[in-house]
Amino acid sequence: MPIPLHAIIPAGGAGTRLWPLSRRSFPKFLLDLTGEGQTLLQGTVARLEPLSASITVVTGSRHFLDVVAQVPQWRDESEEGRGWFSGEVIAEPTPRDSMAAIGLAAYVIGERYGDEAIVGSFAADHLIQNNSAFERAVRTAIAGAEKGYLATIGITPTEPSTAFGYIQRGAPPLQDSLFPVERFVEKPEADVAAKYVEDGYLWNAGIFVVKVQKLKAALRRHLPQMDTHLTSLAREYVSAGGVTGKPVEVALAQWEQLPKIAIDYALAEPLSLENQVVVAQADANLGWSDVGDFQTLSQLRSRTTAQDPLLISFDSENTSIIRGGGTCANKMVVVVGTDNLVVVDTSDALLIANADQSQQVKDAVEELKKIGRGDLL
Amino acid sequence: MPIPLHAIIPAGGAGTRLWPLSRRSFPKFLLDLTGEGQTLLQGTVARLEPLSASITVVTGSRHFLDVVAQVPQWRDESEEGRGWFSGEVIAEPTPRDSMAAIGLAAYVIGERYGDEAIVGSFAADHLIQNNSAFERAVRTAIAGAEKGYLATIGITPTEPSTAFGYIQRGAPPLQDSLFPVERFVEKPEADVAAKYVEDGYLWNAGIFVVKVQKLKAALRRHLPQMDTHLTSLAREYVSAGGVTGKPVEVALAQWEQLPKIAIDYALAEPLSLENQVVVAQADANLGWSDVGDFQTLSQLRSRTTAQDPLLISFDSENTSIIRGGGTCANKMVVVVGTDNLVVVDTSDALLIANADQSQQVKDAVEELKKIGRGDLL
Repeated sequence: MPIPLHAIIPAGGAGTRLWPLSRRSFPKFLLDLTGEGQTLLQGTVARLEPLSASITVVTGSRHFLDVVAQVPQWRDESEEGRGWFSGEVIAEPTPRDSMAAIGLAAYVIGERYGDEAIVGSFAADHLIQNNSAFERAVRTAIAGAEKGYLATIGITPTEPSTAFGYIQRGAPPLQDSLFPVERFVEKPEADVAAKYVEDGYLWNAGIFVVKVQKLKAALRRHLPQMDTHLTSLAREYVSAGGVTGKPVEVALAQWEQLPKIAIDYALAEPLSLENQVVVAQADANLGWSDVGDFQTLSQLRSRTTAQDPLLISFDSENTSIIRGGGTCANKMVVVVGTDNLVVVDTSDALLIANADQSQQVKDAVEELKKIGRGDLL
Repeated sequence: MPIPLHAIIPAGGAGTRLWPLSRRSFPKFLLDLTGEGQTLLQGTVARLEPLSASITVVTGSRHFLDVVAQVPQWRDESEEGRGWFSGEVIAEPTPRDSMAAIGLAAYVIGERYGDEAIVGSFAADHLIQNNSAFERAVRTAIAGAEKGYLATIGITPTEPSTAFGYIQRGAPPLQDSLFPVERFVEKPEADVAAKYVEDGYLWNAGIFVVKVQKLKAALRRHLPQMDTHLTSLAREYVSAGGVTGKPVEVALAQWEQLPKIAIDYALAEPLSLENQVVVAQADANLGWSDVGDFQTLSQLRSRTTAQDPLLISFDSENTSIIRGGGTCANKMVVVVGTDNLVVVDTSDALLIANADQSQQVKDAVEELKKIGRGDLL
């Protein structure tokens, strides 16, 4: 039996640290980065479908058709064929950060299923290797949401990463693996990260599970303007009767009055100050990754792909080749005397990076604008 | 006034150390490796034209049409248009090493211009930056040939390279910059190379200048079979009246009876034992290069090409990008945190090599055969 979860998948972000694979016009979540035969979005959907009463993807209007094409199972427009499950894609007219995107989906779900419904928001471009550990964590978070909290899922750190924010657990636990949140902290410097890991802080994966009525009440208190506009936009959306594959136009004028703010600052931090946030600690073997840079990606690929038949590695170590589609998909690559490199070859751009500097790809790619080649972003 | 030299340019060799730019079907001498707007062959021809009474290129039959296409100035088939200069391309039916190739050209020149003619053999795929220093060296070598010697040109070493053979000079000099050759030595190990440079040995660039009659006499003594067959092949060739652009068929059966031997072992070493070889020492500022590997090539290119508009180099040093034609000619390349790399991108193969291991590209490329991708060679 599906657990009573209405999943929301905000699908946005350019992922410039994964350029030239990830482009503004075809970002990270639309790509099969690990070579496993499904895109990150499709993997996210596949992971959530068995756990959810409905799934709503919220994406930019320019990506609407690409997203719809990746969830062909949602295109059945007849009532009979659908069974219990329903999936939906909402097109944002312009980017207005995560609170607007997740908020609109949550308010639409409230209109359709009532404000007692529990919504859970999950990034479109993360990877999770252990589905049963994921399901346990989601069920624990739902238990927190049912108790009236905003629940998040905390990832047990595998290293003192500086790429993620952290969550400080409080005490005592509400139940097995469910803790009050003491505070959220930003991405730390390396020495601080080591201290956090030592002190049992968890990685913040940006997952939020909450009852619609709790979310609405929090916005009414902290961002009343957002509550007003989302209420009105959601009513219009539902009355226009969106069906996956046919975008419903979200009223642009009203949409652009929504505050541009991340859900972390709009909801999670204010509620944590009011002791209204709990964290479900996922099992250490969850196998979560944000696939945030090429070093991470190449580690994932070395686990999931076999020996590359199009690579000759001569006196070289730790060199990963990642190929885009088109002309370069079948290109032979020969490396001689290289160490710790990530090579990404696409038909119009080639990246060669020291794996340890994968995070800086983003900064290097910014240079493209300066030299007038923003078209390649 | 042209000096009385009949230049021979043997154009062969796959140049696998420059793979994937250089291929069996389109080798190094056919390529504009330095980006200066002419191929190595065209540069060699341009350098020799003002110095020579005639030029004869000897190449494999598979490269005949490509070579002819690169010397359009030789295609004038009317006697009137030609003036004093004549250029010719001889197609070898199969590869039989340098003595057969250079020998056939020399015997053909003997048939046409008489055995007093002086021939000079110059590699098709070397680079020389100082043409007046080159002319001085050639004139000195011709003086040696006129005195009845086999003359070679010795390059003053710029470093203790292990990539070249060396020439030990004898004493006293016959004239300014013209020395008897004590001996030829093979490519040395690094410590031996350092000793050679200290002792004033010169690099052997494989250039030989000699009267046709001297060459014929030496072959008659040391390789009489080669003399017999070359005499007969050259007579047939000249009577068939070869004109550049229309290959004359060299009789295959007779060609394949020629000993397969390099001119160094067939002519230079035996004659040096008989004190019949002299070396013209080129000026130190000759600027000679065999463009033998990517490290050499990238150094040449950094001198000759301006800032690459298709390269973003972020926190990287000494990284050279060399592009083949086709789809990759205009590809943007971004390097992040790389050091001392040579990157060669072509439409069907990508090479990334540590510049210090450029010599090993040849060995890495051999692996292509093992994995059944000899088609890429």
